Amino acid sequence: MNFLEERIQRDGIVKEGNVLKVDTFLNHQMDIRLFRQMGEEWKRRFEGVYVNKILTIEASGIGIACIASEYFDAPVVFAKKSQSINIDGGMYVAEVESFTHKCRNQVIVSKKFLGPDDHVLIIDDFLANGCALQGLISIVSQAGAVLEGIGIAIEKGFQPGGRTIRNLGYRLESLAIVESMDAATGKICFRDQSQPV
Amino acid sequence: MNFLEERIQRDGIVKEGNVLKVDTFLNHQMDIRLFRQMGEEWKRRFEGVYVNKILTIEASGIGIACIASEYFDAPVVFAKKSQSINIDGGMYVAEVESFTHKCRNQVIVSKKFLGPDDHVLIIDDFLANGCALQGLISIVSQAGAVLEGIGIAIEKGFQPGGRTIRNLGYRLESLAIVESMDAATGKICFRDQSQPV
Repeated sequence: MNFLEERIQRDGIVKEGNVLKVDTFLNHQMDIRLFRQMGEEWKRRFEGVYVNKILTIEASGIGIACIASEYFDAPVVFAKKSQSINIDGGMYVAEVESFTHKCRNQVIVSKKFLGPDDHVLIIDDFLANGCALQGLISIVSQAGAVLEGIGIAIEKGFQPGGRTIRNLGYRLESLAIVESMDAATGKICFRDQSQPV
Repeated sequence: MNFLEERIQRDGIVKEGNVLKVDTFLNHQMDIRLFRQMGEEWKRRFEGVYVNKILTIEASGIGIACIASEYFDAPVVFAKKSQSINIDGGMYVAEVESFTHKCRNQVIVSKKFLGPDDHVLIIDDFLANGCALQGLISIVSQAGAVLEGIGIAIEKGFQPGGRTIRNLGYRLESLAIVESMDAATGKICFRDQSQPV
């Protein structure tokens, strides 16, 4: 197990309905030393890839993206969630479905901050069904920017998001991929990423 | 002028209705090198103060707080905005009025992450009327934690938030205090903080 898998194993809590609570270190309280290890690991995995912008989505992606950006020396842009239809012409807009909150939101990024010259690394905390990520990819595409890769902290490997993204040919690096988890026993199984694919 | 005042002068845009847009470097696109300078400066101003937890509020406070936390070596907790009345017993809750969005929100922090042993530094991007900040202070107080200080990036000195907080005896360090700004000319005047108070 790598450092993140160990931490999930130690402090993550499995709840009914395939919920994995990691709020003690990832998305409510944030362990910045852990975030630094994550940034280092993405830098290692994306070695030699030119990145001049990191894109994430509010709120829980922001902290991880900011710390990761220190290893890529690139500014971070975060997409804003907006329920308003009030579209200013200067925005890229994507529709994002939220399974957790059972609603559709718009995700927006100002056109000032993404364009054809940008080489983008998307960073986010979770990947499950992949709706938020698909919205971010749509925005990168609208901007005519190059999507160099996607760094996810925790992927739920038993949900379709990651497979879809890989099938589409994007380079996706999830630091921990949960293959299965059991609320009754608390047991969490991770995909073995130690073997070259 | 200090580094942040210079940056606001250069890249900030004054709009009608006392709006200062700093989305190119602070709260949509985020300049992490600038955030590091801010973290260093808060560390200098709070030299010798024991801080074991940094508290901020989603979304735009998170990035600044995470980078600042590297200078204090403390985890960051971000308060979540919630419109639901669905209060789980394990939460501190404060009501926060938003002038921008003309609504009242609840701000919540899990009781797991703040308690009587904590020495808290609050970090946020903006201070104007101070409603969000008052909510965070209320949460620190509910937790029985010690509020060691408050670090704000940009204070609107012509709005009452900062004065109120200082009158209440809290230690507030705003890196830039805008005394006045003019949408017609774009001119921004800062409070001179070089003199000891």
